[in-house]
Amino acid sequence: MEKHLLTTNELKVEDIHQILSDAQKFADGMVWKPERQMFAANLFFEASTRTKSSFEVAERRLGLEVIPFEVSTSSVQKGETLYDTVRTLESIGVNLIVIRHQQDRYFDELIGSVNTPIINGGDGCGHHPTQSLLDLMTIYQEFGRFQGLKIAIIGDICHSRVARSNADALTRLGAEVIFSGPEEWFESNSLDASKFMPVDYAIQQADVVMLLRVQHERHEQKGSFTANEYHSQFGLTVEREKMMKAGSIIMHPAPVNRDVEIADSLVECNRSRIFKQMENGVFVRMAVLKRSIEILQGGNRNENTYTERKLLNV
Amino acid sequence: MEKHLLTTNELKVEDIHQILSDAQKFADGMVWKPERQMFAANLFFEASTRTKSSFEVAERRLGLEVIPFEVSTSSVQKGETLYDTVRTLESIGVNLIVIRHQQDRYFDELIGSVNTPIINGGDGCGHHPTQSLLDLMTIYQEFGRFQGLKIAIIGDICHSRVARSNADALTRLGAEVIFSGPEEWFESNSLDASKFMPVDYAIQQADVVMLLRVQHERHEQKGSFTANEYHSQFGLTVEREKMMKAGSIIMHPAPVNRDVEIADSLVECNRSRIFKQMENGVFVRMAVLKRSIEILQGGNRNENTYTERKLLNV
Amino acid sequence: MEKHLLTTNELKVEDIHQILSDAQKFADGMVWKPERQMFAANLFFEASTRTKSSFEVAERRLGLEVIPFEVSTSSVQKGETLYDTVRTLESIGVNLIVIRHQQDRYFDELIGSVNTPIINGGDGCGHHPTQSLLDLMTIYQEFGRFQGLKIAIIGDICHSRVARSNADALTRLGAEVIFSGPEEWFESNSLDASKFMPVDYAIQQADVVMLLRVQHERHEQKGSFTANEYHSQFGLTVEREKMMKAGSIIMHPAPVNRDVEIADSLVECNRSRIFKQMENGVFVRMAVLKRSIEILQGGNRNENTYTERKLLNV
Repeated sequence: MEKHLLTTNELKVEDIHQILSDAQKFADGMVWKPERQMFAANLFFEASTRTKSSFEVAERRLGLEVIPFEVSTSSVQKGETLYDTVRTLESIGVNLIVIRHQQDRYFDELIGSVNTPIINGGDGCGHHPTQSLLDLMTIYQEFGRFQGLKIAIIGDICHSRVARSNADALTRLGAEVIFSGPEEWFESNSLDASKFMPVDYAIQQADVVMLLRVQHERHEQKGSFTANEYHSQFGLTVEREKMMKAGSIIMHPAPVNRDVEIADSLVECNRSRIFKQMENGVFVRMAVLKRSIEILQGGNRNENTYTERKLLNV
Repeated sequence: MEKHLLTTNELKVEDIHQILSDAQKFADGMVWKPERQMFAANLFFEASTRTKSSFEVAERRLGLEVIPFEVSTSSVQKGETLYDTVRTLESIGVNLIVIRHQQDRYFDELIGSVNTPIINGGDGCGHHPTQSLLDLMTIYQEFGRFQGLKIAIIGDICHSRVARSNADALTRLGAEVIFSGPEEWFESNSLDASKFMPVDYAIQQADVVMLLRVQHERHEQKGSFTANEYHSQFGLTVEREKMMKAGSIIMHPAPVNRDVEIADSLVECNRSRIFKQMENGVFVRMAVLKRSIEILQGGNRNENTYTERKLLNV
Repeated sequence: MEKHLLTTNELKVEDIHQILSDAQKFADGMVWKPERQMFAANLFFEASTRTKSSFEVAERRLGLEVIPFEVSTSSVQKGETLYDTVRTLESIGVNLIVIRHQQDRYFDELIGSVNTPIINGGDGCGHHPTQSLLDLMTIYQEFGRFQGLKIAIIGDICHSRVARSNADALTRLGAEVIFSGPEEWFESNSLDASKFMPVDYAIQQADVVMLLRVQHERHEQKGSFTANEYHSQFGLTVEREKMMKAGSIIMHPAPVNRDVEIADSLVECNRSRIFKQMENGVFVRMAVLKRSIEILQGGNRNENTYTERKLLNV
């Protein structure tokens, strides 16, 4: 058992199932708290409403104290390294640190040198394990299985943390992953080209249509599209949604560019699980934090060792 | 009963009295908490020490968990709409949202589409209902009535949220409102010109002299004054204060421009209720939050249904 | 007894011992909480991870509610004075205010006018009493006394809050303080020139080598060095560390410029107490906050009057 959570790839299939199981228990009302007062800090070196707030809610629901950390007013401005910032927080008594950072694998300089569990809230274009886990939870909630599902991931696979982590995990869990989107965006990519399919075909085949955000900020150099062009060529238009299989669902990591990746009117349609994904994000993060805290507390994860207090009278 | 609080105008006279009554109970030490853990978020798209901190203290006194939300580091920077931001917070489990936004009636795009109660912390130059309510509370504390009082509102009525909301509510509550200030600032205004009076006359007549902040940032185009000019022509100078009626009081929404709207030496004089207004702001906001929470909890506001725990042993 | 903590100089020797004694009790697990819900605000007008987070953790461990205050989004942006900001926080119910401000003796305009205890988190190049106290605590932990110790403070004494406060307090406590660093940085300085010594000599003599941060931002005009030059001439190099006395220790207020004031490999060496200082910072701040709260609560500091609850079962 690893106290850190850095990448989805490092999680074994049984780890994933354990986390999803705990997350579902939290969704169903389980209350679980650390045995003593604990402090968490969320170090976000990139903007994010969703992930940061979601971790914050998860931490508070677990009864953690959350220490505010604003990059813009921290000693990072005086050139302090990430390592020294983390060691500082560790020294003042922070027990868990969530980090989002623009540098790929920023955590390589930390692991082995710091004691505090590091939860990766996203690194560069690399990994975003809690986003992957919330996607997996949403799919499992819907279908009760991964085996035999066909998942179409559509968009900027090359630059997407989500796509990389998800494709790997879903494949290991027994699902089939196919890709679509602008072919230009795939060229210098290591992904199996045989999985690439035209967008209309992908949408017709899929049990889950997983749309990726167009990251305008990353496409200054390479082939780019107007919003309208992208929407008509690769977006989930009102017409394409009608081609989807019965029972299939729509996912998107958000924030959504309305009428680009997906038609405005579909964002909250019956097939959409976009806001459900956000809900599940809190439960997944509670499960991930619990996993690290249990190791800090020295217990093992045996079902009998943790307290499942009575459901709150909500 | 409405779960949102958007404008003072929407509040009936009995709603106002109910809120003021609860606020006074909080001022007197009443302790009231939600039945379960609840999360609030304060979305401030404009700078404000006073209003944001006041809501924060009110929320903490009610035992709410407050999720930090910094506009500058949120996905609003990636172009996310207000609606999507609110729906996101709703999805991750935020129960109450306070919003200050520079756009007039920003809430029109939210109401009917979101479930979470929205408390308006100020919109554009339009509404600022909790500021109005704290003004009303301060007046009622002083005089025990509104009927028959004469309130002089002096300054930039045209651009003031406070003036508009207050004038309406005070009139409905039975007070007489008169206006004064630079005549140039009134020209394109819909307010009843018959209520305009010269500043010396207004100050002599009033039970309450309610000064408005000169909002330098909004007067680039139209007629402007130096600080000295404004003070001598329209400000509450040391000389004008001597002309005030016995028992009359001075109010200002703050932050004060000292020696502009009011002489520096008068800011904390015996007549001044400026810091009292800030104190009352917390109690009014507790009452407003309680009102929304009671609806969330499905109870009605009958005096017997809510818990009035024993006063804290302070 | 003074409810504020503004400078180290104002603290009598017995005050210092009392604070260090309480701090050590907190380090040993003492739990102490205010008698009622209390609110703290941390007003940081300058960037700081360490001090702000350390106060935040200290406040939370004491069970205080901490009101977020971000200078960049506050009415300070509208030109509000520090006095009005503090009076505002006081009015909305904040009980304790920690301030870091770039202006020397910013607190002179507050003391006598505000009721709320002010804890100085650093002013200009002047004072930083909790940093001094954590340094003192770290030394006392190590040696169990101050009498007879020789402390070498090395670096930019002229611009250092830490150096000024520490030199004064250490001398009063019975230690001998010597200074070293670039002679150019000492010229316009009032410190006793007789205490200046060459760096190699200082390092050989000292029980405590207290390095100061090179504050690049303050040295644009005056004599400056490259990082390499500074390190070889005045830094604690690997070679110089070997010249240190047996049992002597290394301190630095952090953030460290690695390979400037101190060789990268020495930052966490056996002699280094750099991260221990940070740990102690939390305990010292808890003790300082407790001291102010006890005065707010009207009790005296007699050992019998405060509650020492049972140690948490950690």
